Order: sequence, then structure tokens, then C-alpha cells
Amino acid sequence: MRWTKAFIPTLKEDPAEAEIVSHRLMIRAGMMRKLGAGIYTYLPLGWRTIRKVEQIVREEMDCAGAQELLLPILSPSELWRESGRWDEYGKELMRLKDRHEREFALGPTHEEVITSTVRGEVRSYRELPLCLYQIQTKFRDEVRPRFGVMRGREFTMKDAYSFHRDERSLDEYYQVMHEAYARVFRRCGLTFRAVLADPGIMGGKVTHEFMVLASSGESVVISCPMERCGYAATTDTATGVVASPEQPSSSPAASPRGRTPDIGAPIEEVHTPGKKTVEEVTAFLGVSPDRLIKTLIYEVAGETVAVLIRGDRDVNEVKLKRALGRANVALADEAVIRRITGADVGFAGPVGLQGVRIIADHTVRGIKNGVTGANRNDYHLTSVCEGRDFSSGEYYDLALNREGDGCPNCGTPLTTYRGIEVGQIFKLGRKYSESMQALFSDEDGSARPFVMGCYGIGITRTAAAAIEQHHDEDGIIWPMSIAPYHVEIVPMNVSDEATVKVAGELYGALSERGIEVILDDRDERPGVKFKDADLIGIPLRVVVGPKGLSRGKVEMKPRGSQEVSLLDTSRAAEEIAAMVRGELERLNPKSQIPNPKRS
Amino acid sequence: MRWTKAFIPTLKEDPAEAEIVSHRLMIRAGMMRKLGAGIYTYLPLGWRTIRKVEQIVREEMDCAGAQELLLPILSPSELWRESGRWDEYGKELMRLKDRHEREFALGPTHEEVITSTVRGEVRSYRELPLCLYQIQTKFRDEVRPRFGVMRGREFTMKDAYSFHRDERSLDEYYQVMHEAYARVFRRCGLTFRAVLADPGIMGGKVTHEFMVLASSGESVVISCPMERCGYAATTDTATGVVASPEQPSSSPAASPRGRTPDIGAPIEEVHTPGKKTVEEVTAFLGVSPDRLIKTLIYEVAGETVAVLIRGDRDVNEVKLKRALGRANVALADEAVIRRITGADVGFAGPVGLQGVRIIADHTVRGIKNGVTGANRNDYHLTSVCEGRDFSSGEYYDLALNREGDGCPNCGTPLTTYRGIEVGQIFKLGRKYSESMQALFSDEDGSARPFVMGCYGIGITRTAAAAIEQHHDEDGIIWPMSIAPYHVEIVPMNVSDEATVKVAGELYGALSERGIEVILDDRDERPGVKFKDADLIGIPLRVVVGPKGLSRGKVEMKPRGSQEVSLLDTSRAAEEIAAMVRGELERLNPKSQIPNPKRS
Repeated sequence: MRWTKAFIPTLKEDPAEAEIVSHRLMIRAGMMRKLGAGIYTYLPLGWRTIRKVEQIVREEMDCAGAQELLLPILSPSELWRESGRWDEYGKELMRLKDRHEREFALGPTHEEVITSTVRGEVRSYRELPLCLYQIQTKFRDEVRPRFGVMRGREFTMKDAYSFHRDERSLDEYYQVMHEAYARVFRRCGLTFRAVLADPGIMGGKVTHEFMVLASSGESVVISCPMERCGYAATTDTATGVVASPEQPSSSPAASPRGRTPDIGAPIEEVHTPGKKTVEEVTAFLGVSPDRLIKTLIYEVAGETVAVLIRGDRDVNEVKLKRALGRANVALADEAVIRRITGADVGFAGPVGLQGVRIIADHTVRGIKNGVTGANRNDYHLTSVCEGRDFSSGEYYDLALNREGDGCPNCGTPLTTYRGIEVGQIFKLGRKYSESMQALFSDEDGSARPFVMGCYGIGITRTAAAAIEQHHDEDGIIWPMSIAPYHVEIVPMNVSDEATVKVAGELYGALSERGIEVILDDRDERPGVKFKDADLIGIPLRVVVGPKGLSRGKVEMKPRGSQEVSLLDTSRAAEEIAAMVRGELERLNPKSQIPNPKRS
Repeated sequence: MRWTKAFIPTLKEDPAEAEIVSHRLMIRAGMMRKLGAGIYTYLPLGWRTIRKVEQIVREEMDCAGAQELLLPILSPSELWRESGRWDEYGKELMRLKDRHEREFALGPTHEEVITSTVRGEVRSYRELPLCLYQIQTKFRDEVRPRFGVMRGREFTMKDAYSFHRDERSLDEYYQVMHEAYARVFRRCGLTFRAVLADPGIMGGKVTHEFMVLASSGESVVISCPMERCGYAATTDTATGVVASPEQPSSSPAASPRGRTPDIGAPIEEVHTPGKKTVEEVTAFLGVSPDRLIKTLIYEVAGETVAVLIRGDRDVNEVKLKRALGRANVALADEAVIRRITGADVGFAGPVGLQGVRIIADHTVRGIKNGVTGANRNDYHLTSVCEGRDFSSGEYYDLALNREGDGCPNCGTPLTTYRGIEVGQIFKLGRKYSESMQALFSDEDGSARPFVMGCYGIGITRTAAAAIEQHHDEDGIIWPMSIAPYHVEIVPMNVSDEATVKVAGELYGALSERGIEVILDDRDERPGVKFKDADLIGIPLRVVVGPKGLSRGKVEMKPRGSQEVSLLDTSRAAEEIAAMVRGELERLNPKSQIPNPKRS
């Protein structure tokens, strides 16, 4: 492609709307434009990268024995009512009525549609397992679309669904998909981790997220640094062991009057005027935060619930939802808190708290010399003992895990990093096949619901995540496999006849070798061209200019490197083509391509 | 792909829902399933064909210098209001509101979105011409979805939009696209014609439809049989010359009382009890239909319009809309007709008709001895002369053309055939760029609106049209270029070890040569396999069985032919691969591939 014929509207300035690097660079590099909140047009340069990601995904899905199809975007409400998700999904599900007032959802995911497709067509265990996938535009009406395509309302997804006779077959195929996903992201040139995650509204029990490591990631992953252990989970899922506080004796805690109460000392009510937060109370009383029993009042489906957790920890609401089996939880408002506790926000505590369900995080267990709100304005209680002064029949893992918590597998202190979720695989089990009566006839003749798995990859998000991981201050540094072009040729001066001739010949010679080349044939200063070349991030830049040509050379520089090689014009095409192929093979080594399992 | 691993749910019975061959066969061959009215899932076999059509379209678009991008499906109502189509489009436009009550259309076409994308990005005449295209799911809320994917509500389209400095550049590029379209349909193995058509709601003046010839086609094309003339148009557009009736003298017409009135004879009111239709009146009065002046009362945007046409012709409502400059016209109901004419339906006539706009087809001009309704129940007028007894100031071409009308270019009697519209190209002109203020700066510095073209291909419809054109009573006969697989191998008996071995080796050898093969490894009777093979229509069928193998042979039969060849097992892979390649090259001869114009 010649730049003068291409539609690559690069921008010199950062767009005001962009909050993160990939968003900023995709706009500036002329890869995309915003049409509405969370709705983007992919311009030719961006679309080339997205199609390359699609193709890598397609090849690996085919390799894993999955078959491509296309399900409709319009999905009739009846199917969503069968599964119960028409009501459950809430406002994120975009809905519309046709001219006959029939209701449809714009598919955000297709469990219902695929289940209804397979139901009645696949009748025997002999036709299982079966995996079907599609690459399609999906819709999700995000409350607050942001970060460009990371959290958009219309985006491209690969979604696959597998159908099995039993759990054993699902477990096997889940592993096949796990490996296929790893190959996809490796081929895209990404550094990633597969981590345990929360199934949320999808249902099912086991699920892994594939995280591209990037400091801008919305997700925090907690993982075990011991390679042979390999534990990794999102903070919403991590069950890391929360460290016990140091022994009370070694962390001198004093009452405001300087007396260290013995364990077993009676409760004392102390005046803590205006001290509401953990920081204020611990500073005022001179105790460490791990002595506090934080009491949070939640409203959950009409019920009021007091949630206790140690003062040095935070509640993870995803874990709380799971513990309570509810899709939504919310902190109660002040009026409710006053009615339940008799005090303002900041003075709640479990001692003597009536008419409310009390649940507690494991960290509260065994606190012997604690501090908590007195359910009276400006007062706290000290020397509070769990079991003696209050009790909760319900203990759960509710704490947000963090760096340093113990690995639940091996006890090693966990480390954290940020990641961007680009894929997720789920063991759905029978959630959809049971509710939608999707049955097959097993070997013994009995009708059983399919055991299902589902597997998603955010195609547009993967492209954006690649930028988050591969960029510098000047622009994108594309991995060769998903770069819009492999090579950019920059003639220094399009008025110099020899320059134009050599650049044109190299362009032709590379194109003939199947290398994707963009030739910046604009009549612009070299500085402008170099800036744009760095911005759009084509892996290899070849500069053709009179100075080099006088010695029979062109200059080759990989993006992101400062190393310039001089190539003989006569051998440049061959050498550059070999470099491109070498890099593509490095990302997709033949030896790692598995045998197709189902071809 | 092995059949036992594939998801190809073929059906023995015709589905009740299917009205035309392609619909019936796409369901029976396991290519697709209905999810809702006009909404289909493309199963793996169908999807393979559709992706091949997509790829042919993509290659030819790239070759024509168009660049692929992806515009959003959700398009904000504001853009449609700018062009005026939010109101104009009516109920076919699917609409929805997001969680913030903002209105969106699900794009049925993307003139507004592409114009808003290019507006502000392309600023100079130096960046023109520019052509952008996408391949995308489109939505249209058809009143009566039918014929499977032919008239669906969700379907795949390729839509391209070109931007030009002036009409000359558009004219040139329109021709480039015309040729690219011809190559697309030729490569798909289709017999087609490009015909003049009606621009309708798209706007613009010149437009051609690409019609795949098929007896089930919804469109009737009228064309000149003279090859050097080449005139062809849809009945909605054809301006063919309507033959004048024979001279009145040579077609003896009699009044009911047996008297042949002279031209110039005075009007006579005759009793025609209960005679309302052209057939009834002409039979009763013994006159030929070309003597009748048919009077149809229409309602058009609140106005009542009487439309006159000769009794042997029908009104083409598309021409009527164009003549009146309205998007909708409808026959008036009985009450209106009674109020306007003073009589029941069947007795309207132009003589003495008051308070209504009268327009007439050219065929009414010069009628000297006509018959028409008397605007009185059970009475008609005879000896009616146009000009003397009534007149219309407005004459238009309103007649539906038909076989035998004169070619407007050369006068040769026109012939007709039926076709399926698979593509359409439009010279839009400045309709969108003017209403949406999409301007570029021309060489002289002045700001001018772009001159635009747009170009659509129905991808899913092309696949269905291919079936309409290529099938027999047993099933589909795919052109090689868009067949889901090139070759189907049928082992006669999967219990015979030698059969299974040779079939497996041939499968491997063909796959290695890049040939797409499906191996019917089901444990079924040969009859069942042959029936399915004929149904899904893979171009080459290879039968492997003990009888042939005893002589070292396999049987090869092209679908749609009765000629069976015996191939040596040792050379079968090579020969079959050569046949596949030969057929693919025949459909896409290298010599016809143009040089890329804009790469």
C-alpha cells in the first residue's frame, strides 16, 4: 500500500477523550475513531490488525477441533427467558422490539442461542463432544464505557461452546482449550497468565481468565512466585491465606489511658469523639488496625446484613455476592445504618447488634482484644472478644487478597501484578442444558442434559492489550504477527529520482515475496514520516535516501530498537523478507503446532 | 474434516417453512437453521461457503483499490436525522434506545456513518478518490421475511463507499466497480447480468443491479436481445417503448348495439351492469383492452390522484412514486373512491372528474375512441376522446414494461427473464455530502461537497442465489470456488480395513495438497451417504470400495454429472488435486486479474 492512497489519518495531538495508552495510540495512529460512547469505527490500519488477531484465533480454534459458524445477533427474548437471564442480565443487555412488538436482545454472549441450536440436532452421545465457535460483533450497554475498545459497547469477540457427555470429557476439552488459548496469545506476541477467576453471571464453577500483563490493566492478579506451584487468581477469586496479625503481646496496644488490657479483660466503652475511620480510631486509641473489627452494613435483596472484617482488610464484594448467592450487594445508606445501629456511620459494631444478619470474614475469628464501634455516636468498645461478646454463625472468605498473603496451595507469600483480561474459559456444567432442556440420549438410552463449556476471546481488546504491552513514548511497537504491515519503506525525498526508483523496486520485490509493505510516498519532510512511522509502529522500517544509495545501501531499523543495519540494495528484499519470516516463525514455531485433533 | 466429527445435520424431509429451492436445500443440507422470522444461524457447512464468497469479494475489492474497515452496527440517530433518513426510512429501520434513552439504528446501510467518518478526516482533493468498504451483518425489519436468506432481517453485506472530487472521477470509478462486480460473480460461478435499476431510498441517479439469472428470482429483467445494444433494466426502471395498439379500424370494436362509432362520434353512456374489471367490460362491450382508459385512484401523501393508463397495461408503482416524487403511494380505499367519483370501485373515469389531480401514462395519449367508467354505478362511457372529453396536463412513463415492448435504445422487441438481485452499485452524487456538510478543499481552495458512490453485495444472498442457479432434484451442485469442500470421499464400508486405509490415505494426501476434503466416515449404508453427498453438493465425489480396490481403483464422479472415472489409487490424489485446481483456475483465470490500481 502506498501511503498517499491509504486512509491513515494520524494525529499529532493526543485526543482529549483518551485515558489509557492503547486508546490514545489507536486514535492517534489512525487505527480507529469514536462514533459514540463506547462505539468505534475501525479504520483500515486498525482493521488489518484486528483481522490478523481473528485469523490467529480461527486457526487455533480449528486446530482444537472447534467448528466455525455464525449465530444471529438478534436473539429472541423467549430464549433468554428460558435460561432466566432476560431478567437477570439487567441493563447491560441491549434490547429492542421489532415492528410486531416482539422483543430481542442484541447478543452479548450466546449460551442460549447455541444451546437452542444444538438442542434437537445432536441426539446421541456418539455425536459428542462437539465444539462450535464464532467470531462476531457483540453488544454490552456498559454504564460507563471507557478506555477505548477495552470497555466498549460494541466489540468483536470469539465465543466458543462445547458440548459433552460428562464432566470428564469437559475437563479434557477445557484443557485443550486452555492450551489453544495459550498458543493464541503467544502467537500474538503477548506476555500473559492464565488465572483462576469468578464465573459471575455466566454460571458454572471453574473458570480461568487469560490476562495480558500491563500496568494499565483493570484487573489485579495475585500469584504464587513459586514456579512449581503456579497458583494465580484475580483478586475477586483469590482465596489466599490472610496473614494473622503479629501476636498481641508484640504489638503493644494501649487503651487511651495507657493500660494494656489482658485478654479476658471485660469490655470497656471509650469516648472517641468524631473518630469514624479505621485510621482515626486506631490513631486515637493507639492500636494497630488488625485489632479493629470493621462493621459494614449492606443491603442485599431487601435484607440488611452486617459484614465484619478485620480493620486492616477490605471486603471484596464479588466474594460477598458469591457468599450470599446474590447478583447485587450495596452498602446501606445512612438512614438505614442509623435505624439498625442507633448511631451515625462510623460507630457500628457487632456487640449487641439486633435484628440484622451478621456474617464475618475469617480474619475476625479469634480476635480476643478487639476494638469496634459501640453503636452509639462517638463511642467505641475495647477489649472485645469474638465468641464471648458477639458471634456470627457465618464465616466466609470475604477479604480482598493482597501482596504478601499466603498462597493457598503452598503458603509462599503471594505477589501481585496488573493485567488486562483478554480471554476467559468456563466450565459451565449443566446450567443452560438443564434450564433449556437440551438433552441427548446416552449409551444406556437415558436422556441427559449436555455438560457444557464456553470460551471467549476479546478480539478487539487483544489488539488494544498488545499496544498496552508493546509501546514507547513515540508510539506502538507491533509484534510482527499482528502488525498492520510487516515493513514500512520511507523514501527520504520523493523528488530524488534514484530514491523513488529504489524504494519502488524494494516495495515490489517485498510484495512479490508475500511481505506486507507500506511505502510512505508522501511529499513530506523525513521528520514527519519518521514520527508517523514510530506512531503506527510497523516492525521494520527501511529508509531509502541519496546518502545511503551513493554507497549502494538502504537503512533498516526494527521499531523499538536503536540498531540500524545497512543492507546492500541488491540483497535488501531477500534479507528483509527472511527477517520477517524469521520473526513470524519465532512467534509460531512449527514444533509447537499440535496435530489437529478432530480434522 | 471427518463427517463423524462434523456438525452437518442433514434432513431427509423438506422443511415446511421453505418456499424456494435455496431455502429448502440450505436447511436440508445442514447449512443453516431458522432462529426467528428472517433470522438464521449459519451452521459450519453454510458458513464455509459464505466465508468463501466473502473472500472473493474482499480480494476483488482490494484489487479495485478499496480499503477494508469496520463501521459500527449501532449508529446514532443524530446522523440519520442529518441526512433526513431517520423519518424517511420507516419501519424497516430497526431502532433501539440505550440505557440513557439515546436512540440508535441497527445499520441497514452506512451512508451516514461513512460520510461522518470521512468528513473532517479527508480535507484535500489530493486525498481523493478514496474508496472504503466493509463486510458486515446488516439489519432490515422486513414486513414479510421470506425465501430464507433472500429476504431476511439479519444478513451479511459488503458495502463500499467512494468519495470523489467530481463526477468524472465517480464515473471512472463506477466503471472500475462495475468490472470488479462482474469478476466477483464470475468467480462465484454465476450467470448474471448487470441491469439499470431504481435508486429508491438510497438517492442518486444512476444505478445498476447485478442479477443472477434464476427462475425463482423476485425481479423481472427486461433486456434487448441485440448483443451490440445491451440494454437491460428491471421492470421498475425499464423505459421500454410500449407498442401502440393496432389501428382501431383493424380491431373491430362494437358498441353493445353493434354499431362501430366513428372517430369523432359523441360520447355515449352505456349500461354495463356489474361490469367492473377490464376483462368484464371489454367482453361485455366487445372491445379490445387497448381501447379502455383504466382509472386508478391513489392516495399520495394526503392528496388524491387519479392515474390513467391504457386497459392492456399495468401501472408500475415504483415509476409512479418517482413521477410524483414520493416514497409511498397506495390505492385509495372504497370510501374515498365513492366520495371522489360518486360510484363504486370499477366505474371511475376521467370525464368530468372534479377535485382530483389527474396524471396519465403515455399510452393514454391520443386515444380517440375509448371506453372508460362513467363515475356512475353500472355505467361506462364509449367514444371517449383524449383531449376532447378529458385531459391531463401530466403525462409520464408509468407502465410496467413487458416482453415485446420496444427497446428504448434500438427499438428491437425486448425479452424478459427472472433474476435475483445480488449486488447494486449507485452513483449517489452529493445527496449525503450536501445534507451532512461533508466538504473538501478543491485545487482552487474552495470548499466542495464530495461526489459519492456506493456499492453493495449481498453475501448471504449470493450463496443462496448460487443454489437457485446450480441444483437438481437431489440437491446442490456447488461451483468449485464457493463449495464448502472441494472433494467428498465416500468409503463404501467402514468395516472393511482396506477401504478405510485407502480412504484415509487419500484424505491425507489431498489435505496435504491444500485440497479441502470431507470424508464420510459414518457407519451408514452407501445409499444414505450418496443421498447426503448429492444433497450437500460437493463438486467431486470419490467412492472407495472393495470392488474398485480389487482392481487398484477408486471412482470419481463430478456432482451433477453421470460420468464416473476410475482412477488408480496411486495417482488419485494427484489427479483429483489437478482437477480441483483446474476448475478453480477456470473460474478465476490469471489473465483476467487486473493490476491492483491502488496498491
